[in-house]
Amino acid sequence: MADPIRIGIVGASGYVGGEILRILVNHPKVSLAIATSKQYKDEVVYRVHPNLRSFTDLKFSEPKVDDLTSNCDFVFTAVPHGQAIRIVPSLLGTGLKIIDMSADYRLKDPVAYEHWYKFTHPQADLLQSTVFGIPEIYREEIKSAGFVANPGCMAITSILALAPFAKARIIDFEHIVVDAKIGSSGGGTKPTIGTHHAERYGVMRPYKPVDHRHTAEIEQELSKLAGEDVKISMTPHAMNMVRGILCTIHCFSEERLTVPQVWRLLRDFYPNSAFIRYVKDKKGMGRYPDPKILSGSNFCDIGFEIDERMNRLLLLSATDNLMKGAAGNGVQCMNLMLGLEEREGLEFPGLHPI
Amino acid sequence: MADPIRIGIVGASGYVGGEILRILVNHPKVSLAIATSKQYKDEVVYRVHPNLRSFTDLKFSEPKVDDLTSNCDFVFTAVPHGQAIRIVPSLLGTGLKIIDMSADYRLKDPVAYEHWYKFTHPQADLLQSTVFGIPEIYREEIKSAGFVANPGCMAITSILALAPFAKARIIDFEHIVVDAKIGSSGGGTKPTIGTHHAERYGVMRPYKPVDHRHTAEIEQELSKLAGEDVKISMTPHAMNMVRGILCTIHCFSEERLTVPQVWRLLRDFYPNSAFIRYVKDKKGMGRYPDPKILSGSNFCDIGFEIDERMNRLLLLSATDNLMKGAAGNGVQCMNLMLGLEEREGLEFPGLHPI
Amino acid sequence: MADPIRIGIVGASGYVGGEILRILVNHPKVSLAIATSKQYKDEVVYRVHPNLRSFTDLKFSEPKVDDLTSNCDFVFTAVPHGQAIRIVPSLLGTGLKIIDMSADYRLKDPVAYEHWYKFTHPQADLLQSTVFGIPEIYREEIKSAGFVANPGCMAITSILALAPFAKARIIDFEHIVVDAKIGSSGGGTKPTIGTHHAERYGVMRPYKPVDHRHTAEIEQELSKLAGEDVKISMTPHAMNMVRGILCTIHCFSEERLTVPQVWRLLRDFYPNSAFIRYVKDKKGMGRYPDPKILSGSNFCDIGFEIDERMNRLLLLSATDNLMKGAAGNGVQCMNLMLGLEEREGLEFPGLHPI
Amino acid sequence: MADPIRIGIVGASGYVGGEILRILVNHPKVSLAIATSKQYKDEVVYRVHPNLRSFTDLKFSEPKVDDLTSNCDFVFTAVPHGQAIRIVPSLLGTGLKIIDMSADYRLKDPVAYEHWYKFTHPQADLLQSTVFGIPEIYREEIKSAGFVANPGCMAITSILALAPFAKARIIDFEHIVVDAKIGSSGGGTKPTIGTHHAERYGVMRPYKPVDHRHTAEIEQELSKLAGEDVKISMTPHAMNMVRGILCTIHCFSEERLTVPQVWRLLRDFYPNSAFIRYVKDKKGMGRYPDPKILSGSNFCDIGFEIDERMNRLLLLSATDNLMKGAAGNGVQCMNLMLGLEEREGLEFPGLHPI
Repeated sequence: MADPIRIGIVGASGYVGGEILRILVNHPKVSLAIATSKQYKDEVVYRVHPNLRSFTDLKFSEPKVDDLTSNCDFVFTAVPHGQAIRIVPSLLGTGLKIIDMSADYRLKDPVAYEHWYKFTHPQADLLQSTVFGIPEIYREEIKSAGFVANPGCMAITSILALAPFAKARIIDFEHIVVDAKIGSSGGGTKPTIGTHHAERYGVMRPYKPVDHRHTAEIEQELSKLAGEDVKISMTPHAMNMVRGILCTIHCFSEERLTVPQVWRLLRDFYPNSAFIRYVKDKKGMGRYPDPKILSGSNFCDIGFEIDERMNRLLLLSATDNLMKGAAGNGVQCMNLMLGLEEREGLEFPGLHPI
Repeated sequence: MADPIRIGIVGASGYVGGEILRILVNHPKVSLAIATSKQYKDEVVYRVHPNLRSFTDLKFSEPKVDDLTSNCDFVFTAVPHGQAIRIVPSLLGTGLKIIDMSADYRLKDPVAYEHWYKFTHPQADLLQSTVFGIPEIYREEIKSAGFVANPGCMAITSILALAPFAKARIIDFEHIVVDAKIGSSGGGTKPTIGTHHAERYGVMRPYKPVDHRHTAEIEQELSKLAGEDVKISMTPHAMNMVRGILCTIHCFSEERLTVPQVWRLLRDFYPNSAFIRYVKDKKGMGRYPDPKILSGSNFCDIGFEIDERMNRLLLLSATDNLMKGAAGNGVQCMNLMLGLEEREGLEFPGLHPI
Repeated sequence: MADPIRIGIVGASGYVGGEILRILVNHPKVSLAIATSKQYKDEVVYRVHPNLRSFTDLKFSEPKVDDLTSNCDFVFTAVPHGQAIRIVPSLLGTGLKIIDMSADYRLKDPVAYEHWYKFTHPQADLLQSTVFGIPEIYREEIKSAGFVANPGCMAITSILALAPFAKARIIDFEHIVVDAKIGSSGGGTKPTIGTHHAERYGVMRPYKPVDHRHTAEIEQELSKLAGEDVKISMTPHAMNMVRGILCTIHCFSEERLTVPQVWRLLRDFYPNSAFIRYVKDKKGMGRYPDPKILSGSNFCDIGFEIDERMNRLLLLSATDNLMKGAAGNGVQCMNLMLGLEEREGLEFPGLHPI
Repeated sequence: MADPIRIGIVGASGYVGGEILRILVNHPKVSLAIATSKQYKDEVVYRVHPNLRSFTDLKFSEPKVDDLTSNCDFVFTAVPHGQAIRIVPSLLGTGLKIIDMSADYRLKDPVAYEHWYKFTHPQADLLQSTVFGIPEIYREEIKSAGFVANPGCMAITSILALAPFAKARIIDFEHIVVDAKIGSSGGGTKPTIGTHHAERYGVMRPYKPVDHRHTAEIEQELSKLAGEDVKISMTPHAMNMVRGILCTIHCFSEERLTVPQVWRLLRDFYPNSAFIRYVKDKKGMGRYPDPKILSGSNFCDIGFEIDERMNRLLLLSATDNLMKGAAGNGVQCMNLMLGLEEREGLEFPGLHPI
């Protein structure tokens, strides 16, 4: 058997880093070499991610380029937005393969960083060559990539549902409403009064209801597929759960869409995509996509209805925001970049009930 | 002091009936005379509504017209859709004042019942004379009414947010998206596999995502205000809480709307409405409407944002579905019909945290 | 009508202070004069307690003795443990009536503060004269008191269930197990990783499972009633809700207890106590005490079972930790101290369902 | 590679049956041959267990002895209590290996069935030869068994924590309090008003607080280990989550226990038990056992504290009630009975956060 591929995770005490750790402790082809965290330096990993007790005795270490280049074959950077730009270039220069989980390399247009993220991107060239990490759209590019930018959780959940229809250009590109619902893990590990259990429990709380940053990624990818400008109206809501995203996407069309036509567009767009499931049934609890059953799984469940009265195409897209919305998708990209089976380590079915 | 007004509640073991009971046990001007329930006949009320222990020793009785007419001055009918049409006429003939909490008298057009509710309405004339029970819109009509149809929970929550803009005709009437989120109490008391805790907990579950029946009421009222046909695209979602509705309403406009303009339209439309609160703040937990803090209160909290990129007017409207969305609004109507102070019995502020 | 009594609340941005505010905005005999908060100085109260929007325009002010003595007739101190000892004496000297919501004056024995709270109490004399604020036990003392120490939330919930049996001396005082379950609001407003929604949601988390500080209050009161040393084995658990305490109390007895005997001991101990409800039924959702239905209400619901196999007396006691467990009980004491009707402002029945 | 072992599950539409299916779809050494359900006959399995969509196209079939004996090598019976006695004997006669998930074969004493389950057991002989399925106690017996009775969820969670101390006879066998907290999945799939989301959400609801049936199993096993009668005082509570059990076990001792002594007793009792984890830490979220992080995992997390004031040994034991509390433990037994690696299919670490 080949030696395991050595993995480093920069920013491993966060929820995305922790989920990458969780997947990789059971991944048959890799070994965990380094998990960095400034805050928890020298602590065992399972003190922060208590589910990993008995799975690894790894300790968090401070992030150091030398350590990563000497001891790793592959690195995930899972640091907050605006910090990856300070780390990635030094690692990339050493020939390490890298997936960045932050937003720092998702957008192609440097100007967009000024508009949406309020900073001037110092590596405009790198933006162009970075592969946007959606295997269902860029599988071949990812296979040969050395550097991949993993999409945002609400972005990938929205894009996967909308892509076939953007490409087919059968929806009105001025009136796409993405009404997103998301659990608290999407907000990261930093305690604030807004994430304090007594305040956060039981909410239906809109946040950043206009101009949310994930808009930029979604519009970039849909416009590329459509060959023209696509705009979206996005409003996220903090909901009373920890994991999960549901994107309810309201589209309108001029022409009269039919159910078989929508099915065909979906199936044709995703010919070999094990992590896309179509969920549309006449009965049962699983009639429509619902992130409730996706915790720990890497699926994007997509469903739809046609509202004939309104010429509305309703798309429903659900993921576990930490899995297909982040770490799971990242490991899927890693598998492709390393020539491994795409689904390796990602076969957990999710739980029912939960 | 005047004798208390004697109240009867038909269908008092349901959640709406129980909430009317809960409000009225502390209402200074009324007394509870009759609470009917076929299923729980002869049981004390607090065995079904355990919060009422020590507040009333009333027992459920079978619904009988004679009992109601002899012992009540005012009756709430809180029975399932399709059953009120069998009860209301016999009570109305006796001169009792009545509020019907069901959908049976909300629509003006008898044909609409065939389309949305799949039955032929036997009392088409009554539909015309019934007052639609939104005090903030029909206060004077309600004051002089003998019979009021209380609106649906998602309907009133949507209408209150949209009414000023429908009347002002400044939004695109073809692209109004109502994305509603609702707690489990909106579905009533009947246990099914879909409401079973292990299945219902933690969901983000779209249900009846196109052609939901509340659409009819909303379109009726908005069209009346606009003086032309208004259509809405509505998708409700079952969410992981018991009480509360948030309607996220995405509208589009041709012209460029301004924040002061939107404020003005809201304020002008609701000049003396104690239960409409505007919630739009730059900081704090209460930046936008959130039903979390509305449990037990009769408010409709309304907020908004303008999405300049999209010419989108985002309206946010939150209620407790059993209060302003049902029982609380019903008691507010009752107060008006009885010449009482509109807020009597409805002053509970809601809880924080909860 | 008499002028309203002017109330000051020191520490009004916390959950207990906020709940006192919530009760008092609707209390017919008092007016809110001062609400202090260092952190939120000059902010409107409803920015912190969003349920109070439209109920008060009061702003938080810095706590100043002069302001309180000039503008208030009655003061609640709702500051963290160890801070009240620095405030109370200066206020008490001015003749203000005061209820302290903290633990600083609950214990009679100064040595106990060193053991349980790790500080030397600077006002040992005051401890002796302070009335322990349980109206159901010390009603007459509270009526004539100028200073009352409000009990801890788990303490009062436990004491109310155990008091009749401690006094009757029919349980084994060496084997009393108090297994407490509590919502997150009991932990206050300070965000930490432990209260972060993603970490705190869905827990069944024991905390301070031995030597919890409320033990001291419970043992003090039960020993006084029993006339001998009573010890308790207490273990609290953080549970997945915001409000509510359930104390499951396992007692053992030498003799064979009977159901009528237990009923009689309870009824005899609480002859005129509107906020004690006995909850023991053969059917229905409200068969046993459950804090689910107590949110916002001031009840302590008490139930029991006799386990004949084990000679075990199982006591079940439920409160809303912010109401009968804190603010509601405080207002009940205030009513007594001011000669008002004991239940004034505290008649909310709680909600069902919720 | 050897042919996969063919598995049948009788009662596969329940939560335990569904969880066995979920584990086995990814188990490398077995194949799913039959999943029976009278209610869902001919439905695809994933319509009931929506997480299994894309994992299996198996349909539910009616339970028939011939089908099971012809097509299976190993059968799980996961039917309600009182029904297994009608199925197991006919299967066992054919030489099939069987694990029964119900209570029908857990007790050795036929009289106990009359007392606790109110039926006369028709197969008293079989009770004696049935192996009680706790691998950590009966590993060798299970390896050679043809028939195993899987323990109850609260029973195994309690027994695993108490066993070392029962065997060492260092706790007072008259005062063992098991205060159990459990999620809703433990109650099965049948919708009732008590499991209706609006009623069940947010509860802290004691149920069957004395004389719960799992008492019998626990006392049987502890008495056997102790060599004398051990009695327990058990009170379960329905809590606001779907999965998970926490047993808070309050024991008392005559002698003064020490922390090293307790550690030693635990470690000595479980020398090679991968699914027992000791959780006792000075800091971090994982300081004590908490079922929050165990969903989908097969661990029993055990922790403790010594309460010196009371001579109390506090044991804390947490499981996922559907995993180590049912299906996971069943598959662990199956692995042993089939000569497979004990952990096969059971390596999922659980999720954090969730």
